Amino acid sequence: VNALSAAELETRLRDIGARRYHRLHPFHKLLHGGACSKGQVQAWALNRYYYQATIPIKDASLIARCEDSSIRREWRSRLVDHDGAREGEGGIARWLKLTDGLGLDRAYVTSLQGLLPATRFAVDAYVNFVREKTLLEAIASSLTELFSPEIISERVEGMLKSYDFVTAETLAYFSQRPPQAERDSRFALDFVKQHARTAETQRSVLSALEFKCDVLWAMLDALYHSYVAPKHVPPGAFAPGDQEV
Amino acid sequence: VNALSAAELETRLRDIGARRYHRLHPFHKLLHGGACSKGQVQAWALNRYYYQATIPIKDASLIARCEDSSIRREWRSRLVDHDGAREGEGGIARWLKLTDGLGLDRAYVTSLQGLLPATRFAVDAYVNFVREKTLLEAIASSLTELFSPEIISERVEGMLKSYDFVTAETLAYFSQRPPQAERDSRFALDFVKQHARTAETQRSVLSALEFKCDVLWAMLDALYHSYVAPKHVPPGAFAPGDQEV
Repeated sequence: VNALSAAELETRLRDIGARRYHRLHPFHKLLHGGACSKGQVQAWALNRYYYQATIPIKDASLIARCEDSSIRREWRSRLVDHDGAREGEGGIARWLKLTDGLGLDRAYVTSLQGLLPATRFAVDAYVNFVREKTLLEAIASSLTELFSPEIISERVEGMLKSYDFVTAETLAYFSQRPPQAERDSRFALDFVKQHARTAETQRSVLSALEFKCDVLWAMLDALYHSYVAPKHVPPGAFAPGDQEV
Repeated sequence: VNALSAAELETRLRDIGARRYHRLHPFHKLLHGGACSKGQVQAWALNRYYYQATIPIKDASLIARCEDSSIRREWRSRLVDHDGAREGEGGIARWLKLTDGLGLDRAYVTSLQGLLPATRFAVDAYVNFVREKTLLEAIASSLTELFSPEIISERVEGMLKSYDFVTAETLAYFSQRPPQAERDSRFALDFVKQHARTAETQRSVLSALEFKCDVLWAMLDALYHSYVAPKHVPPGAFAPGDQEV
């Protein structure tokens, strides 16, 4: 098998996004289309909190295996984005403004008590992937950010329009993310195009991006099953109506 | 908080099984009640194959962290049960008789290509749990076997009665398991009762068993969502009708 050119590789990566990114998931359509109940939006924000809170652990795991100072330095900005310069700043803190705004008790959210086990398994799989695969695959798995500015704009617009329990202030997380995601995904895409030159490594980066799409997709599958239909909440997980402030 | 007696601890462990074991899951009820289509039974067997195939890796991971020769020796029988004494024997080989009998291509099954990502995440979470938690918690997480003889007898009886595509021969896996599970779970239960003597370690073993119930439950949640209702098969996963011999 012949290797692809860098431009062909980029086309194939973008094609994975067009077919498998969670923007296509029915739960996303309900959420941004204004068809979710408050309890469903709460369940989404509560579960997605674990993803947000785990991202710096994923990024530090990636930095920890990087022998090149310039890549570590570049990747470090992600830690700043999520953990902030000080208490109360950064992406995780902004996500908690969303769960606050939805009326969820903050101690309950951060305790992870109500998390769907499937969310935990999917997010932990992402961290383990970054720890165990090659650095190239770890970097490629971040490339879902190529597709995130679009989903974020749909989400913000749709949610502000449709839900009276959502305000621009509680959606502060999303207003910050697109420029960060653009900068980060440009770096990761350049890295992947430069370092994946053989058919084998190109296959591995394509698989890494599929894997990451699977992680995000599985999180929405679990939300759909538990909170949309047939609404089978697993034992111990968040039940809408519970845990409001 | 005071520690429980060994008998009280056993009662609490059995109570977790009574409330959270996957025997209570709607998918199990459909399966043993004869309400599944052949495609749904195929999807179950295909996904469950990954669990079966991973169990010896889980058990070897546990043995690998054991400093006590007598425990390693005891636990080793599980490797024999699943991997067999020679090619074509053991639990994994018997599971493949089931997927064969259901008309699934064996190379497709073992390639894991059609696996639901959620199955992979849940099963891998189990292996990582056994690698990362204490030995006591790792052993406690095997205690779902206390409850398996009952689910197996329901499954065999219900499936033989209801599905003309299932025969006693293809269900050979299940006829072997109950005595093995009884022997293994007796050892694990004795170990846990003997070594979990403080309130803290007792909490950890109760959590370990809840975690393991969550793993099995999440696997059935994903099957239900993908193949029962609303039948949203994730991109790339097995679609009934595909991959038959």
